[in-house]
Amino acid sequence: MANAPIRILGLDPGLQHTGWGLVEHDGFRLRFCAEGVISTKAGEDLPDRLLALHHGLAKVIAEMQPDEAAVENTYVARNPESALKLGQARGVVLLAPALAGLPTREYGAMEVKRAVVGNGHADKVQVQAMVRQLLPGVTFKRADAADALAIAICHAHHRSTRNAFARAVARAGA
Amino acid sequence: MANAPIRILGLDPGLQHTGWGLVEHDGFRLRFCAEGVISTKAGEDLPDRLLALHHGLAKVIAEMQPDEAAVENTYVARNPESALKLGQARGVVLLAPALAGLPTREYGAMEVKRAVVGNGHADKVQVQAMVRQLLPGVTFKRADAADALAIAICHAHHRSTRNAFARAVARAGA
Repeated sequence: MANAPIRILGLDPGLQHTGWGLVEHDGFRLRFCAEGVISTKAGEDLPDRLLALHHGLAKVIAEMQPDEAAVENTYVARNPESALKLGQARGVVLLAPALAGLPTREYGAMEVKRAVVGNGHADKVQVQAMVRQLLPGVTFKRADAADALAIAICHAHHRSTRNAFARAVARAGA
Repeated sequence: MANAPIRILGLDPGLQHTGWGLVEHDGFRLRFCAEGVISTKAGEDLPDRLLALHHGLAKVIAEMQPDEAAVENTYVARNPESALKLGQARGVVLLAPALAGLPTREYGAMEVKRAVVGNGHADKVQVQAMVRQLLPGVTFKRADAADALAIAICHAHHRSTRNAFARAVARAGA
């Protein structure tokens, strides 16, 4: 039995480009809704770039009205300096849905690939091909948005599994 | 000639403990106003911890009414994973004063030590001793708050230098 669809916002954080993708999930079917990228200007001061990222995310959340959010627990760079930079954007990206009161989950890159392609070591091309197959009519201009949609799909799968498990527990207890 | 005092909020970011310290500066004299630490619970989910940090900072800014903010451009950890964690807190810490419309500057740890102690390689004990000497009547319970006060002092010094330079340029041009 299909439930009322929930709207899932996937987010792929980055200071330069943060991808976002919105899907609807009724417990069985996935539907593509919208996607985009929030970009900040490389030459500007960091507080201004973080502010632009925050306002961009707040606008997407206000317009798209998601019910839940999922954020990629990004692959840690080998270089501590780039990890710090990525972390700064990631903190601001995680804050936005939390401020809007949305349940927000994190998923590792391998977990996302496993959920979408069935293989935690899949490459970007395979992920994008599966995103196109799982979301008929999907469009995305940038890879960041495709990654964000993959994160939203991953959350939908995990959500279904958790709900099925909860139902099984409830039945066993009844 | 002393100017109307400005209130400077110094911030030392950390996910577990973010120190803050407020000083007033009239162009010559420094005055200690307040200090504190915003702590988040280690066991909670990251989005909830970042949200608690954000709300804590917003409360300090609303109550303390600073005019400007200064944030430590933290020493980069050797470990990329801890750099990512620190970055997440730092992004949220930089966002709060920017959201409140405060001019926000970043200072490196060596720059802070040089401004406060006169030596970029000073240790924590020397920094705390100088913070006590420069801010008569200062109190701080935690080292994080002492560091935040040192950052605020550093900003006051840099600000005075910038203003003196701007005045000299204006005089030369007049």
